[in-house]
Amino acid sequence: MKKALAFDIGGTKIYSTVIDENGEILKEIDKFSTPKTLDEIKTVLSKQIKKYEEDVDIIAIATAGAVNNSNSAVLGSTGNLVEGYSTIDFQSLSSKKVFLENDANAAAWAEYKIGSSQGTSVSVMLTLGTGVGGGIIINDKLLKGKSGAAGEMHFKMYPDKRRKCTCGSWDCFEIYASGTALKLDAEEMLNDKNVTTYDVIDGVKQGNKIMTDILNKWQDDIIIGIKGLANIFDPDCVVLSGSMAQFVDISKIEKEVNSDIVTTPTSIRLASAGNYSGMIGISLLALSQGL
Amino acid sequence: MKKALAFDIGGTKIYSTVIDENGEILKEIDKFSTPKTLDEIKTVLSKQIKKYEEDVDIIAIATAGAVNNSNSAVLGSTGNLVEGYSTIDFQSLSSKKVFLENDANAAAWAEYKIGSSQGTSVSVMLTLGTGVGGGIIINDKLLKGKSGAAGEMHFKMYPDKRRKCTCGSWDCFEIYASGTALKLDAEEMLNDKNVTTYDVIDGVKQGNKIMTDILNKWQDDIIIGIKGLANIFDPDCVVLSGSMAQFVDISKIEKEVNSDIVTTPTSIRLASAGNYSGMIGISLLALSQGL
Repeated sequence: MKKALAFDIGGTKIYSTVIDENGEILKEIDKFSTPKTLDEIKTVLSKQIKKYEEDVDIIAIATAGAVNNSNSAVLGSTGNLVEGYSTIDFQSLSSKKVFLENDANAAAWAEYKIGSSQGTSVSVMLTLGTGVGGGIIINDKLLKGKSGAAGEMHFKMYPDKRRKCTCGSWDCFEIYASGTALKLDAEEMLNDKNVTTYDVIDGVKQGNKIMTDILNKWQDDIIIGIKGLANIFDPDCVVLSGSMAQFVDISKIEKEVNSDIVTTPTSIRLASAGNYSGMIGISLLALSQGL
Repeated sequence: MKKALAFDIGGTKIYSTVIDENGEILKEIDKFSTPKTLDEIKTVLSKQIKKYEEDVDIIAIATAGAVNNSNSAVLGSTGNLVEGYSTIDFQSLSSKKVFLENDANAAAWAEYKIGSSQGTSVSVMLTLGTGVGGGIIINDKLLKGKSGAAGEMHFKMYPDKRRKCTCGSWDCFEIYASGTALKLDAEEMLNDKNVTTYDVIDGVKQGNKIMTDILNKWQDDIIIGIKGLANIFDPDCVVLSGSMAQFVDISKIEKEVNSDIVTTPTSIRLASAGNYSGMIGISLLALSQGL
């Protein structure tokens, strides 16, 4: 059975483990805080690679940021990673093949292979976390675009500059559908800069009316975005993943989306490949396409 | 050299001619007003088919409305065609194979094969006419979605119900980027229900300031939509076609789009396959994929 040494590199944490070609996690997950310098990031990766590369067939790295079409490097800068991250020569860190993909794309691939979108021909995954990630699979292939950067959920919710997005532009879907967005909705609706996402969720649990209105407004914006994606892609399903996905009402979203699109009905589903879907997906991708 | 009997069926006109596998138009274009009943539509098609089917290898029909994934029928109802149009059994009209595709998809295919998007791996075409059509080509294939209806440009420009779209929903890109949209922009900005698209275009030509503002507002909305599509698809190019495309400033659109996307720069281009690109595209598709 072939195996990958998997990494998931995010803005705050790096996770690593060994995963086989069935997507089985074979050892405990190692966790590191993401260092603030390039050299320290390379050191974390190198140590882990030295420890395990003899036992595996490939090094599989899911990472924040867009990954090029040869799966070897990160394209340009990524908001929450150290400057110069895209200059890292990942292949130089191992004698084994190193295979990269964007973390949201990797997680979408895990859902497609072992999770909620198995057997579909067209699926859209939205990762609702601090930001919003996108992974689109069409006829057994990730949508990568000309350079590898496709699937960015930065289409506009308003044309007239209301809320600045983390990408530097204005009013992208990400800044209305993310955890950050829920906090901004609460700030605006309560006129209180200190309210947190947790306050909203806790308030909803206690039946607080205004907190429920805030959550619903946030969910309505997610619905607006999914309607557009459903009309563009006509997908079998839209999978919602990430830490914020637990707070949405899947059946309500499905009903509202399907009542207002020109394409045929789509299925809205929660992700089911688990917390380590990024590492599972990148391992399955690397072992099937990278060797 | 293989040949197709081509049709382009729209809400007001039906065009037909014979086209070879190089995309060459081999005879004069026949034009018919689109009849208002199913039987009359079938009669127009049948007469033309009887006249030419012996000389061709396939019957190639570009049509308004989404076409199923087996290229045999129209899915559901289409706004500007007679009720029941989707029940037509097109194959019954000829002893030769009949191959259908949506008209915007067919036109996008013509651009990809003989026009502005030749040689690209990912292209998005927007047909700016009375409405807005979309045709997306990814790695040598039309994006069709699970049922064939993908590429509908009905993502929302506002989340809060301002302008009713022709599809029955609210605030879709189509109702801000079409010819109809330019008239609505003018109506709103001039507070005059009787102003026409022609008045705006004519005013712009004469250097009228408010008419120029109206055209720019309409173009700005097109730019907003293209930014979202560029971030989602990371396309090599976005091709603009249709009767309204002649009024946009291609280089301004390209500059503004590329200054505000997170993916790599895309090229904005005018369509170049000509007025009969729908018939050319459907013929090339049918002759390469339908036989």
